[in-house]
Amino acid sequence: MHKVLIDCDPGHDDATAILYAARHLDLVGVTTVYGNQSVDKTTANALSLLTLLGLDVPVARGCDRPLNHSFSHGGDVHGKTGIDGADLPAPSRAALDMHAVDFIIETASRYREELVLCPIGPFTNVAMALRKEPRLTKWLRAISVMGGTTQVGNTTPVAEFNIWSDPEAADIVYRAGVPMWMAGLNVTRQVGITEDDIKRLQAGGSVARVFGGLFSFFLARLREIHGINSASMHDSCALVPFIAPDLITYRECPVEIELSNGLTRGMTVCDFRNLTAAKLENIRSRAAPNCHVAVGVKARPLVEHIMEAILDWPEPKSAT
Amino acid sequence: MHKVLIDCDPGHDDATAILYAARHLDLVGVTTVYGNQSVDKTTANALSLLTLLGLDVPVARGCDRPLNHSFSHGGDVHGKTGIDGADLPAPSRAALDMHAVDFIIETASRYREELVLCPIGPFTNVAMALRKEPRLTKWLRAISVMGGTTQVGNTTPVAEFNIWSDPEAADIVYRAGVPMWMAGLNVTRQVGITEDDIKRLQAGGSVARVFGGLFSFFLARLREIHGINSASMHDSCALVPFIAPDLITYRECPVEIELSNGLTRGMTVCDFRNLTAAKLENIRSRAAPNCHVAVGVKARPLVEHIMEAILDWPEPKSAT
Amino acid sequence: MHKVLIDCDPGHDDATAILYAARHLDLVGVTTVYGNQSVDKTTANALSLLTLLGLDVPVARGCDRPLNHSFSHGGDVHGKTGIDGADLPAPSRAALDMHAVDFIIETASRYREELVLCPIGPFTNVAMALRKEPRLTKWLRAISVMGGTTQVGNTTPVAEFNIWSDPEAADIVYRAGVPMWMAGLNVTRQVGITEDDIKRLQAGGSVARVFGGLFSFFLARLREIHGINSASMHDSCALVPFIAPDLITYRECPVEIELSNGLTRGMTVCDFRNLTAAKLENIRSRAAPNCHVAVGVKARPLVEHIMEAILDWPEPKSAT
Amino acid sequence: MHKVLIDCDPGHDDATAILYAARHLDLVGVTTVYGNQSVDKTTANALSLLTLLGLDVPVARGCDRPLNHSFSHGGDVHGKTGIDGADLPAPSRAALDMHAVDFIIETASRYREELVLCPIGPFTNVAMALRKEPRLTKWLRAISVMGGTTQVGNTTPVAEFNIWSDPEAADIVYRAGVPMWMAGLNVTRQVGITEDDIKRLQAGGSVARVFGGLFSFFLARLREIHGINSASMHDSCALVPFIAPDLITYRECPVEIELSNGLTRGMTVCDFRNLTAAKLENIRSRAAPNCHVAVGVKARPLVEHIMEAILDWPEPKSAT
Repeated sequence: MHKVLIDCDPGHDDATAILYAARHLDLVGVTTVYGNQSVDKTTANALSLLTLLGLDVPVARGCDRPLNHSFSHGGDVHGKTGIDGADLPAPSRAALDMHAVDFIIETASRYREELVLCPIGPFTNVAMALRKEPRLTKWLRAISVMGGTTQVGNTTPVAEFNIWSDPEAADIVYRAGVPMWMAGLNVTRQVGITEDDIKRLQAGGSVARVFGGLFSFFLARLREIHGINSASMHDSCALVPFIAPDLITYRECPVEIELSNGLTRGMTVCDFRNLTAAKLENIRSRAAPNCHVAVGVKARPLVEHIMEAILDWPEPKSAT
Repeated sequence: MHKVLIDCDPGHDDATAILYAARHLDLVGVTTVYGNQSVDKTTANALSLLTLLGLDVPVARGCDRPLNHSFSHGGDVHGKTGIDGADLPAPSRAALDMHAVDFIIETASRYREELVLCPIGPFTNVAMALRKEPRLTKWLRAISVMGGTTQVGNTTPVAEFNIWSDPEAADIVYRAGVPMWMAGLNVTRQVGITEDDIKRLQAGGSVARVFGGLFSFFLARLREIHGINSASMHDSCALVPFIAPDLITYRECPVEIELSNGLTRGMTVCDFRNLTAAKLENIRSRAAPNCHVAVGVKARPLVEHIMEAILDWPEPKSAT
Repeated sequence: MHKVLIDCDPGHDDATAILYAARHLDLVGVTTVYGNQSVDKTTANALSLLTLLGLDVPVARGCDRPLNHSFSHGGDVHGKTGIDGADLPAPSRAALDMHAVDFIIETASRYREELVLCPIGPFTNVAMALRKEPRLTKWLRAISVMGGTTQVGNTTPVAEFNIWSDPEAADIVYRAGVPMWMAGLNVTRQVGITEDDIKRLQAGGSVARVFGGLFSFFLARLREIHGINSASMHDSCALVPFIAPDLITYRECPVEIELSNGLTRGMTVCDFRNLTAAKLENIRSRAAPNCHVAVGVKARPLVEHIMEAILDWPEPKSAT
Repeated sequence: MHKVLIDCDPGHDDATAILYAARHLDLVGVTTVYGNQSVDKTTANALSLLTLLGLDVPVARGCDRPLNHSFSHGGDVHGKTGIDGADLPAPSRAALDMHAVDFIIETASRYREELVLCPIGPFTNVAMALRKEPRLTKWLRAISVMGGTTQVGNTTPVAEFNIWSDPEAADIVYRAGVPMWMAGLNVTRQVGITEDDIKRLQAGGSVARVFGGLFSFFLARLREIHGINSASMHDSCALVPFIAPDLITYRECPVEIELSNGLTRGMTVCDFRNLTAAKLENIRSRAAPNCHVAVGVKARPLVEHIMEAILDWPEPKSAT
């Protein structure tokens, strides 16, 4: 079973990704970062969620802002707590007394060539870890992210929130040389929990009912802001290559991050061109492929797989 | 019948666009620009082509380079002459003794609110005309371009050749406030002349046979460089809204040109986001829509429509 | 005597430059551009000023905005009319029925290898002329500009108003290959008309009294905004190499214009490094020198030379 | 006595700065970074140098590359070892088993509001520490750097090597809100050790003779590459505000780092404008002052002060 460390900013779909990972993989840690809310809140949310799920997984708090620009947290779609819509239990334990950057390095060192690192918030922690410990590029088995898009963005016309929040960090991650998988908005926004799905959750066990409440809030906000009728499970997609690889199709190609402060800052520039001639006078050559980019998804089967993980979650013992 | 002025750099598909426009619209002039080859060559090609077609349309020579960066002409897909593959006749007349920039202004002034301007090469002439005569924005009925892309580029991963050749000029055109139509690579590369089509042309009249030769060369180069099996009639697409509007579907949205010197210079940044809320903390608002962007094409019917225009072209009298 | 064409946006110091040029050189034309005020106002100001001076010099109206960004005219230091502080006479003649861009080209063609072009406003007209007629680079004897700075800017920390107003145009001019002289803020702001000078003008003839009024307004605004006690005759400095070459010291070096949309957009990047080794691993090589950059000025003698030109100006016959 | 931690890449002038700091301040640690050479070499050099000087100061190894771009070490002026020109002793101790980033944080935490941090190489370690531990901005008494320039650069026309090597890191440091002093090339290149000074060193004690050899190599390289006749003691200038504050004059003003990938990447953009009006239509307002920028230096007295520190250095006991 793959060992996985999730770097996240819960966040409704982050919460689902943690549950989905814990159901199918060996979740060896969770690190937190600013993003959907402040790192104080996302850390509290991660701890509460693990308590809800009855999981004994270490949590390490990470960075509170991006490397190179100012940032205002987005209460837009996730609400004031970062995970509005249900009351989560008080955390049964505290975060580690170790910074996320160091926890990432230490965990990768312990599980050399075994650990899959899944950044599903801004990539600041991961970038810092890569710069602090260059051997991380050898120690990690893979980095599989939720981030970017091959087409339409959300935060800007062409940029997705996680990458746009810290493009310099994303640049470090994409150039690290670690085998990489990227689930961008072009597939993740298809993986939507519907009103019917929410009803099924609300008719389920205690954990399912909490998720039903969370998704209900999340869907209402997405409908208001983006005019859509399902709540995208963006973050869970980052785990799919290691849980259910048939559900997402990837294409390997060069991906670079735009850092210029123009219209496209934070864009994941994917080179999907077919160039059969190597060098051409007026045509920029292709870089070497560095990422498996998600280009297709069996959306409904993936939603069902996620639903099953939630609905089947065992009643927490602590509930007794 | 719409009056149209084509600003071009023939170029194989430019040649087709001129024929296609002359077949269905009132082609009141042709201006030339560097691009597929030097402006000397593209001007000679335009004159020869009009001679071949027996058309008495004025030609004005334009700019020889982009506004703000150096440029090396691309013999890549169009060959040394800019239109390799067939012997065109010697021109029967010379270019006007007037610069393309002034001819554009004068023609727009003559046919106020009637003229459709179709730039299908780099936009340098058009940008210069807009800056020299600000009233052009009122005089023009529309600008309908071949340029840009909503997805994959050709010259760079995300930029198309015409826009990339002079992004500053494109920026001027897109911000001019003239009603605008854009046919980008996302649709134009679907409009492909096949080997079978070429055989039909080679079995046709004298003009069709010349085009058969041109396309045969063009397809061979495209196959070699881009690994594709049909010769895209990119430039003809710019005329479709005024000839056969049912064949291409457009979506109105904001389009801006990336000028930063990063990965995405020359990209046509189209904002296809659905944002139902106006102002959001972490989300860049939509600009005002300024362009009808081609998003769908009935490719085979359009190819047949172009084929028909070529196959039906009357035998030139001068051939007698 | 050198033939000179001044491209300007009068403007208090533009007015002085016109007088100073007419006193010592063969002023063969004046072209106008937006800048210190709208091109409507700067054209009217140029015509009125020539009427005041009794000069029969053709005026051609030019561009009304920069190539690539939006622009709001600066009434900051020059007032609502663009030349507040004195009543100028109504113009005795109209502007030519020819665009500044064409007048520049035609004049350079007439006086091949004789004409010095002096842009002392934003460089939009000159850039357009260079792109419209590539032979201009051979026809012009020199381009001598007021613009840029080697140290502190005015519009931004490092950019001067004329260059900042249209950096893309400036880029075209600096890369044109014409012999070039640049008088930047580092010298021009030393060339200051004082209160005492203004008193001398106000005690002079009718033209001097008008300039006394103009400078009085100009100095008051500069004192208010920049806290300085003399009114800089920036624009006259562009003429010095051809009138009184001993008064300004120039150093030939590479100059490039920063176009990126960061902190330094519109900066004249002068390479003053001494690099005795040609190629170094970590050091960007020097470009080829393309400009004589003003690095020193005999400020008081230059002010006196300008004052003399004003004080000695003959009483206009029309005043009789 | 001020407590100081030097973050460096020795480097000839780094070596001098360490000696100069140890002579006059409480040097509580040295951290190393890539720059003049690889971090392996600069760490070895730091350890050897401390051995030479008989100093028992902890050394922590830091980052091996910049945050966001590739980097090739410059053997240009410092030679293959990073400190060619003399044989340094083998280190008598090893570097700490703690990363520089953590050592900076721990030291600042120990000496709260007492510690002066002096980055005199690329700022990567310091930036990482600021992002990892946000409280560092309160704990540090000051950051005093060698880096940047107010005028002419060395690595590019306007950028200095330390800043240019990692502009994103410099941006983090300049925006941190810690009281800051900056000694840039505009003053540091005046602080030059001459041939005569080198002779005095070569006639001195064992430590002085080593530095004589180092400077002899360094000066030869600087003469070859930059055509200058003295070896600039750039890095020592960063310590002057805390050792001999009369020797350098500072002016407080806003400083920002240009990150755009144009001509001026890595420039320290200092706003030296006098703007007496707060808001102006066409003029970018001043940011808040964030740095004391060195604008003048008593060069010869400072060289003598440095020379004295070297010449007076006690004979190492280990030499016995």
